[in-house]
Amino acid sequence: MADAGGAIDVARLVCPTPVRERERVILGHGGGGTLSHELIEQVFLPAFANPVLDRLGDSCVLDAADLLAGGGRLAISTDSYVVRPLTFPGGTIGDLAVNGTVNDLAMSGARPLWLTAAFIIEEGLPIAELAEIAGCMARAARAAGVAIVTGDTKVVERGHGDGCYVNTAGIGIVPPGVALGPERVRPGDVVLVSGTLADHGMAVMSVRDGLEFDAPISSDTAPLHGLVAAMLSVCRDLKMLRDPTRGGVATSLAEIATLARVGIEIDEEAIPVASPVAAACELLGLDPLLVANEGKLLAVVPATHADPVLGAMRRHEHGRDAVRLGRVVAAHPGLVAMRTALGGTRIVPMPIGEQLPRMC
Amino acid sequence: MADAGGAIDVARLVCPTPVRERERVILGHGGGGTLSHELIEQVFLPAFANPVLDRLGDSCVLDAADLLAGGGRLAISTDSYVVRPLTFPGGTIGDLAVNGTVNDLAMSGARPLWLTAAFIIEEGLPIAELAEIAGCMARAARAAGVAIVTGDTKVVERGHGDGCYVNTAGIGIVPPGVALGPERVRPGDVVLVSGTLADHGMAVMSVRDGLEFDAPISSDTAPLHGLVAAMLSVCRDLKMLRDPTRGGVATSLAEIATLARVGIEIDEEAIPVASPVAAACELLGLDPLLVANEGKLLAVVPATHADPVLGAMRRHEHGRDAVRLGRVVAAHPGLVAMRTALGGTRIVPMPIGEQLPRMC
Repeated sequence: MADAGGAIDVARLVCPTPVRERERVILGHGGGGTLSHELIEQVFLPAFANPVLDRLGDSCVLDAADLLAGGGRLAISTDSYVVRPLTFPGGTIGDLAVNGTVNDLAMSGARPLWLTAAFIIEEGLPIAELAEIAGCMARAARAAGVAIVTGDTKVVERGHGDGCYVNTAGIGIVPPGVALGPERVRPGDVVLVSGTLADHGMAVMSVRDGLEFDAPISSDTAPLHGLVAAMLSVCRDLKMLRDPTRGGVATSLAEIATLARVGIEIDEEAIPVASPVAAACELLGLDPLLVANEGKLLAVVPATHADPVLGAMRRHEHGRDAVRLGRVVAAHPGLVAMRTALGGTRIVPMPIGEQLPRMC
Repeated sequence: MADAGGAIDVARLVCPTPVRERERVILGHGGGGTLSHELIEQVFLPAFANPVLDRLGDSCVLDAADLLAGGGRLAISTDSYVVRPLTFPGGTIGDLAVNGTVNDLAMSGARPLWLTAAFIIEEGLPIAELAEIAGCMARAARAAGVAIVTGDTKVVERGHGDGCYVNTAGIGIVPPGVALGPERVRPGDVVLVSGTLADHGMAVMSVRDGLEFDAPISSDTAPLHGLVAAMLSVCRDLKMLRDPTRGGVATSLAEIATLARVGIEIDEEAIPVASPVAAACELLGLDPLLVANEGKLLAVVPATHADPVLGAMRRHEHGRDAVRLGRVVAAHPGLVAMRTALGGTRIVPMPIGEQLPRMC
């Protein structure tokens, strides 16, 4: 290290600390030390910046008393997202991680307010890709009117993850007087669906495993709490909502039937599926009722309110294609039946396993 | 399929549905369908059972207005847990997932109330092992007085996970009048630590990669909100708390110094390390200040209250070995210095990367 004159050239000294990799995530980014702080400051804070997150505490503290005054209740939800690939037509894992949890809150009638964001990153993920995911989350959060208030980053060794898994937990406020739940569902109620089915699942399939469809299919990922608020504004008496994500409409309807101990009857001819999606499903032998949606909801409403609610849905950007899908019946409790186009009736079973794994 | 007589033997018919594997988690357990419901009903509900979770909504709804009346504020936190191996002396990933998030809430002075629990499971994990993890979470939650109110399960293919990753988010209430934060730290304040350092990290190391130490070392994983409440009962004016998990005490002290824009000086001779842990650290060339703890806290308190707070800590089961570690100074803001046993002073740097990856 000494130069010709024998003096030490400080600029040429090297220190045996970890190489600070700038292009890809390394294990050290998950260590809680300087590299972790750099990742937070370079990727997450610029994307999510808000006064609560910027305090960088282990937890965040929020005033909520005013929000709950007058009978509001707290709604809490969580989901992990493991979709593969991380980017697909119409969205990324970041959009799903925000909209999915926002929607779980919306299904209890809540106004979503705050999200947590936790990342499990596989060593080697390009930091630019992580930044893009964070950017998608930030845009989705702004669009949904929620703040990402606290978070966490872990890194696992190459081969122990799949690029990036994201968990979000959400907190919202259920307005006074709104009480959705299976115990309120009754025979005679009407089942509505807010739009076309299977778009998300087929969009992910379209880029997976080298598949390609002629017509472009985009994920329907979208926040639905605005649509729910519009529905509640014309009918405070909504009975139950579900967003048919993994397992599709068949699974959500079976859950409603089971939890409410009622039968559900849907009309095959009413099932809304966009034609490129229908073609792709047919090509792959998939039933659109079993394919995941990320921007649709099922609603059980009193028959007397079905038309006004449907009208409110159709006036909202995320409910334009809403239709009556079927009805609640006293017969066959726990089961979903479909009146086929040919006039027959068949059972719509809850799927056992996974038709298309890792859709969300 | 026809027998000798030509009739169909129905009992011998097989149906091309997925095999319902009973011993290990398969992809279908993450599909949202019947297998997912079975896993929830057989593993998670029995462990976590409570009236809120039992409703099985996409989100849960809770009354919190009374809890916030009179000036209480909401605390929110999240962490993902990726510890390897899943079980180690003194605990499992399940204990960490509850206590770690409880502690993040406790560090803002909050009483923890509710947890979410989200699992990313690698295909092939024995269901018995998952049930054991859930059992540990349930016991830890009961011990900490928190309820697991909602959750999520995803399954990834073999080779895309590491048995099981767990995320928890926590919600708690900060009592009126409690306001911890770096902006309240002043030169002259005293730094306390609640007990011996490096137990958790060395316990995990003791079972990793075939290492074995002579003396048994156990993780210190424990919920700390009771200790914090005891400290607050003698000093409402606590300035700041941190739990020195990954990155150890060196990282947490550097964070306090940075966020509060003060210097911190600690005394080498005051650093509490149990002798088997000290021996193990020496053997592996590790600095106990950099090793993770899961049941310890650092507290910055006004000098006038240091003795009463220390007394309250020592009377609590999780603070028996509490000591004065050092003090806040006006010099070298953002830096942590250590007065060595020999009378010198050296800088305690924040670690750059990860000395021991995947400790929590």
